[in-house]
Formats: sequence, C-alpha cells, structure tokens
Amino acid sequence: MSSRSGAIGVDIGGTKIAAATVDRQGNIVSSHTISTPLQSSEVAVDAITRLIETIKTASSGIVEPVGIGIAVAGTVDWAHGTIVQSPNLPFSDLKLRAIIEKSCGLPTVLDNDANLATFGEKHYGTARDANHIVGLTLGTGIGSGIICDGRLYRGATGSAAELGHMVISASGPRCTCGSYGCFEEMASGRALVRFARARFVLDGGGLIGEMAGGDPVRVTGPMVTEAARQGDVAANEVFAEVGFWLGIGINNVINIFNPEIVVIDGGMAEVGELVLAPARAVVAERALHPNKDVAKIVRGQLGNQAGMLGAAALVFETFDAG
Amino acid sequence: MSSRSGAIGVDIGGTKIAAATVDRQGNIVSSHTISTPLQSSEVAVDAITRLIETIKTASSGIVEPVGIGIAVAGTVDWAHGTIVQSPNLPFSDLKLRAIIEKSCGLPTVLDNDANLATFGEKHYGTARDANHIVGLTLGTGIGSGIICDGRLYRGATGSAAELGHMVISASGPRCTCGSYGCFEEMASGRALVRFARARFVLDGGGLIGEMAGGDPVRVTGPMVTEAARQGDVAANEVFAEVGFWLGIGINNVINIFNPEIVVIDGGMAEVGELVLAPARAVVAERALHPNKDVAKIVRGQLGNQAGMLGAAALVFETFDAG
Repeated sequence: MSSRSGAIGVDIGGTKIAAATVDRQGNIVSSHTISTPLQSSEVAVDAITRLIETIKTASSGIVEPVGIGIAVAGTVDWAHGTIVQSPNLPFSDLKLRAIIEKSCGLPTVLDNDANLATFGEKHYGTARDANHIVGLTLGTGIGSGIICDGRLYRGATGSAAELGHMVISASGPRCTCGSYGCFEEMASGRALVRFARARFVLDGGGLIGEMAGGDPVRVTGPMVTEAARQGDVAANEVFAEVGFWLGIGINNVINIFNPEIVVIDGGMAEVGELVLAPARAVVAERALHPNKDVAKIVRGQLGNQAGMLGAAALVFETFDAG
Repeated sequence: MSSRSGAIGVDIGGTKIAAATVDRQGNIVSSHTISTPLQSSEVAVDAITRLIETIKTASSGIVEPVGIGIAVAGTVDWAHGTIVQSPNLPFSDLKLRAIIEKSCGLPTVLDNDANLATFGEKHYGTARDANHIVGLTLGTGIGSGIICDGRLYRGATGSAAELGHMVISASGPRCTCGSYGCFEEMASGRALVRFARARFVLDGGGLIGEMAGGDPVRVTGPMVTEAARQGDVAANEVFAEVGFWLGIGINNVINIFNPEIVVIDGGMAEVGELVLAPARAVVAERALHPNKDVAKIVRGQLGNQAGMLGAAALVFETFDAG
C-alpha cells in the first residue's frame, strides 16, 4: 500500500543495459538486464524506454520512483543532459535526458558511467565515509570518477575526469584517443594483452603461449590471469608490468587529488593483488608524503552494479527535498 | 577617518617575503618586501610578525584589515593552519596560523603559494570570469593550484594539487621528490637548463655555449632565453623541447579537469610564446575533444604579486560576512 520512495538507476554499456529500482539505502528492489541494441540510436532509445517501463511496473506498489538516473559509457554534457560521444554506442549529440523525461514522465539525470560508479561506491560501497575519492574502472580501457569535497567533479562542460587519457609515458604506444602513452594504454586490459603478446614474441610466453596455441594474436586477458594463478613466471611478470604502470597512474592521482581513498573496480581489478601489489609498491616508493600516507587503495564493493547504484544515488542527491 | 575594510596578504618565498594591505577590489594600498631570513624558524617568524605590523601601521586610517592571509612555498595542512614541510624555508610542522593570530591579533588563513597565486588570478587577474581553473607556476620547479566550481581544491589533508609531481615520463630523470620523470623535472626552469646542457654536450650549444664560456655547468635559464631571442637555433630547439613537455603536462590537466582556463605564470612563463607555442601545439594535437576546445591557455596578469593578492582574496572569502 504505502510504497517507499526510491529511484530508477540505469547503466548503459556497450554490451548490456542494466536497470533497477533502488531504495534510499541502496537496496535493489527489482532489476532487469537486456543486451544493448547497437543498430541505431532510435532502436537503442526505444529499448531503454521499454526497460524503464518494465522496471517501473515490476516494482510498482513497493517503491515509488522520484526520478531516473542514467549512467552512460561516453562523454556527457552534464548541463544539457546530452551524450556528446560514445565510442561503443550508437549515440552522438543525443539529448537523452530530455527524451527519457518525456517518454517516462519522471525527472531524469544523466552522467558518465565511471563518474557514477565512483558515486555509487561513495554512497553504498567501500568509499562510504570518504569525501575525497578517485575511482578507476579498469576494463578494456580505463574510466574514472573524481569526488571533491563529497561532490562529483565534472569540470566546465561535464567532461572532466578523463584520467585514462593522462599521459604517463609520452613516447609510449598510440592510444585510441589519438595521443600516445596514456594511462589507459599502459595499464588497462588492452595493455595487459599487449604486454603478454610482447612477452610471447620474446620467449614464447610460457603457459600463456600454450593456452593461445602458439598464436600471439589469440592471447586474451583471462589467459594471462589463469596462467598467473597457476604460478607461471611469464604471466606474473606481465602482471608486474601492468601493475607498475597502474602504480604510476595511481601515484599521479594521489599527488594531484590528495584523496582519502582510491577505489579500483572493473574486470581487471578482479585479479586483485596480482595487479594491485606491484601498483602499491610504486606508490609507496614514488608518491609524495603526506598524500601517500593518507590514501587507501582498495577494490570497489559494488562490482558491475556500481554505475547503476550511483545513478540511483544521483537521483536522490538531485531531486530529493527530504 | 572612515577607513575602508581590507586584508593583509603575505607571500613567504625562499628569497623574499612580500606583504601588502589590499582593498576589496584587489588594489594594493601599501606594500613592503624583505629578504627571507633563513637561519631559523624563530627568526623568520619574528620577521614576518614585524613585517605585518609595519604594513598595518603604514595603511592605518586608509584600510582596516579584517584578517591576514599567508601564502607559503611549501606543503600546508589547511585544516590545522600548519606548514608541514617547506624545502626552501626553515619551517617544518609549524603552526604558523595560530602563531600569527596570537602575535598580530587578527584572524589568519594559511595556504600554499601556488594555490593562492591561482586564487589571486581568479579574483583579480586573468581568470576573473572562470570557475574551473588550473594554475601552473613555472619556476625552478612547478607549483600549481586547482579551482573546482569556484573554490580552491585542497584534498583530504590540504596537500592536493601537486601537479608538478605528476609523472609524465616514467623512465625520465630523477626528481627532487625522489620519483622519476615528474612534470616538474621535464618542464620547469631546471629542465630548461638540463636540456641546454645536454645540447651543449652534443654540439657545443651554439650561442648558449659561447655565453657560458664553453663550460656547460655555467649555463643558466636567462642565457637560453637570451640566445633564443637572438635567433639561435640550438636555444630555440631547447625551448621547443621544454615546451613539448609543458604541453604534455597541460594536455593532462585539460583531460583531467576540463578547465575553462589554464593560467601560466612564474619566471619561465615570462618568455611567453617561445615556450607556450610548442605547448599549445601538443595540446591541439593530443588533448581530448571537447576539453581542448574549451580550455584557454593564457599567461597570468598578476606576475609575482599573484600569491599575495590571492592571500588577501582568501581573507575576504573566509572572514567576510558582507
């Protein structure tokens, strides 16, 4: 009867779109996931609208949503609620906030997925007690979110926090962004595979080489992880290399932001200390005092629900009057 | 008779201490400069106290100070008003804010000099209309200040914004901080001299070599500037090199902060386009859209008064009730 108020959180990624109704404590009342339709912007928007309606219906009578929060893998113009560009989605200069507000009849907020993953960890996850937070999502690339004094930092046009495109090795390999030696090019899942292939060419790559059937092109991230877990020396050295560069990036983040906590999530974070231990060693050796003494480097608690939960938290922050 | 209210701004540097009474429009009513006494913390504190009294007396009846703002070249613990460490000053874990409040009888604020130089440019200088600002002070090293949504960003313990110790070339030369390839080690006045000496060893260094009397150890920054202004090819190439690395650092700042404006000041900025032109070229080529289209890269307007004026502006921000 008297349904609690809540929020709808949506996370639009390149392979799937997840949505949930979430209560004020961050509990998921109802959730639903679909494959991302990539054929056109219209088809994708239509699917998102229907997904939101499905979620609304499923939680009707339990939670009454005060708004919709949308996390999107792409560059967002915060003030205008526009997706500026999105490398893995069929969206360009799309005013998604206005479209969803009209089609779903609820106030809507839109932000970058890595920003909202960090916001989710602040509200419901491992960064709950912190006000100065940097979040890094280590996937194929590197996404990031910055929380300054408790609030998301978006910059002049909403496209701040591109820590993945901070140059840390200016003579390094070309990045997908067109620059060279970006953090993302040195410490992401893509970097892990590149280092493993280079190792393969050098000496056959040990167990990784066997797993890939002697073909460096067939090397994948999970193969490197599996080989490292089985104690393969080459695979462990590959993780040490990517961990070194992760440490350089975290070192910069700590010197620049003096955060209380650096939250690491995404697929590559799942290997844990294999990559985090060498990163911590770099920070201990190189970062500035007192910044490095303050900053904890921890894995996120929310896994792949961080963006969706962060989107819900942003609804509460934006539309709540009490 | 009816004196206007104002602020006392003090800038404590490694060679001199400057102080002024400043009105609300940023006009300097009275100013005074002394050499920094380096023999001990007590002697320095005593000199600062007397300098403030001198300034108070000189502007008495014209401006009534509501507080004292102090910019200091070192790491500041903002919450406690403490100088944590200061490489070029005899201060370590010194609670300067409390000492000055007691000895001078006025509410006092204390912050890092590069933070306050940026704050000065926001309130009275070239960044007046901006709310997302990064300031870089290019001296022997590189200092920096970050303004997020109109406010200084200090981080968890007040030691954020160490952009000079962002690694941009991880295999680069050792930095004074103990790390390697920091921005400051690649694009400061110190870097300029190192590049010029390397060039000297390579081919005699052209006009720089002549100016230094054939001794690479005698090369100074002003020699490189003078040689470049006289059209010397080697000197121009040295500026192109330091400008390239300055561009890499500014590229990072633009991708990370999405600022409206990047303000460059300090001794090396005085050479202007000699170093800024190659930096702009790197940003145009490498930085992300839309961030690079938004960010202006400009020289500061306040010169070496920026820190002192920023200290005064911080007094108004902190203690003003109207």
